[in-house]
Amino acid sequence: MRTPIIILVRPQMGENIGAVARAMSNFGLEELRIVAPRDSWPNPKAIEMAAGAESIINDAKIYPDFASSMVDIHVAYATTARPRDMNKRVVTVEEAMQEIYSATSKKTALVFGPERTGLENEEITLCDSIITIPTSEKNRSLNIAQSSVIVGYEWFKASTELGVLSAEQNLQLSTHNSAPKKDYFELFNHLEDYLDNADYFRTEGKKPIMWQNLKNMLLRGAWSEQEVRTFRGVLRSLWERNIK
Amino acid sequence: MRTPIIILVRPQMGENIGAVARAMSNFGLEELRIVAPRDSWPNPKAIEMAAGAESIINDAKIYPDFASSMVDIHVAYATTARPRDMNKRVVTVEEAMQEIYSATSKKTALVFGPERTGLENEEITLCDSIITIPTSEKNRSLNIAQSSVIVGYEWFKASTELGVLSAEQNLQLSTHNSAPKKDYFELFNHLEDYLDNADYFRTEGKKPIMWQNLKNMLLRGAWSEQEVRTFRGVLRSLWERNIK
Repeated sequence: MRTPIIILVRPQMGENIGAVARAMSNFGLEELRIVAPRDSWPNPKAIEMAAGAESIINDAKIYPDFASSMVDIHVAYATTARPRDMNKRVVTVEEAMQEIYSATSKKTALVFGPERTGLENEEITLCDSIITIPTSEKNRSLNIAQSSVIVGYEWFKASTELGVLSAEQNLQLSTHNSAPKKDYFELFNHLEDYLDNADYFRTEGKKPIMWQNLKNMLLRGAWSEQEVRTFRGVLRSLWERNIK
Repeated sequence: MRTPIIILVRPQMGENIGAVARAMSNFGLEELRIVAPRDSWPNPKAIEMAAGAESIINDAKIYPDFASSMVDIHVAYATTARPRDMNKRVVTVEEAMQEIYSATSKKTALVFGPERTGLENEEITLCDSIITIPTSEKNRSLNIAQSSVIVGYEWFKASTELGVLSAEQNLQLSTHNSAPKKDYFELFNHLEDYLDNADYFRTEGKKPIMWQNLKNMLLRGAWSEQEVRTFRGVLRSLWERNIK
């Protein structure tokens, strides 16, 4: 796997170039190429927006035209929201990032067009595949600051295989801290004593279901040993209510 | 399925509020709530950046504090990159959006903190789960314009092409029976009164962290309205302890 290169074609606003660099550093992308930026380069607004990614801006290479930025690239993906009248393979962001991650030592590029007009058909033609980002019909327009965040995010997920691990990690997080059941049983005995003494259940007939529901509620929090102790402290405190 | 509500807590820059609204309209999100925006409202910079999402900005509801924006919400997800010293369930964006999509007719909220500081621990405490967006160690800081794009994108994916949920995810969907937050707020006021009266906290200095931990424990059970009532009945019973 080689980390893909980002190519911005004729970007207009320095702020957007900076935002792309910021997203790149958020998601482990490193090399930025810029084709014919509208404003002069270096662009102070780009550096200002880069927020932690100044080195990506400073190391960016500038090219006069799209073709010259592509000479050493093996596989290029054009990002464009709009369907084009062109017989070109279309993939989702997710699929594209998984392909790139699985590929061996080929230089790949992710190509973004200018803010207002997007990539020209001629430029898309030079790419191997089109990446589409699904959007609502109400507003299909994504700028490069937004689309680079999505592409970077999917790259990071693919390159760290986070999508696969997350369910398991989450399971560990939510259960590995919880107290052994005996702590809960002691808590239940403690609470049941209080409630019996306070005549909470009123009638013996209703007690079994009420008590079962209460235990279910309390167990659902998956409290740690410390938390069970804390809760018993609360119960004791209410019971003894040492009013000042 | 109900489309989740976006809550921005103390957002600073109008441009970012506008960018969030734009991302919302890109990805089929509709309702925006704003808690104590730093600058005056309506904010012309927000409208300028909204680009096609002006109606979301114009319809946004403004709240003086976080709690008041949450009263009718059943399930809230806090978006935060940083791990907190807090025992709270953590899910990926993908998992969270699939859960919300699968849930029936409960109001859910996606909560974003201020640009510089993120959400306060106290605010995270009031949420049911934390959404983490995986990022590179080199630059962990995502602003709300970026994180709302990622959350919106995953929402759109989930709501248009939902995958099959794992058994574990289905299990966790039980949280979607939970009571609206106002029921919990009332429970907290009720319990805090008792604990103050019983001198449970002993020293004022220790109270904030003790109270935060207690609220986290109680929220973790994701109790239904009936269960919250039951628990308040238990508290009242212990407090009044009508010994036979």
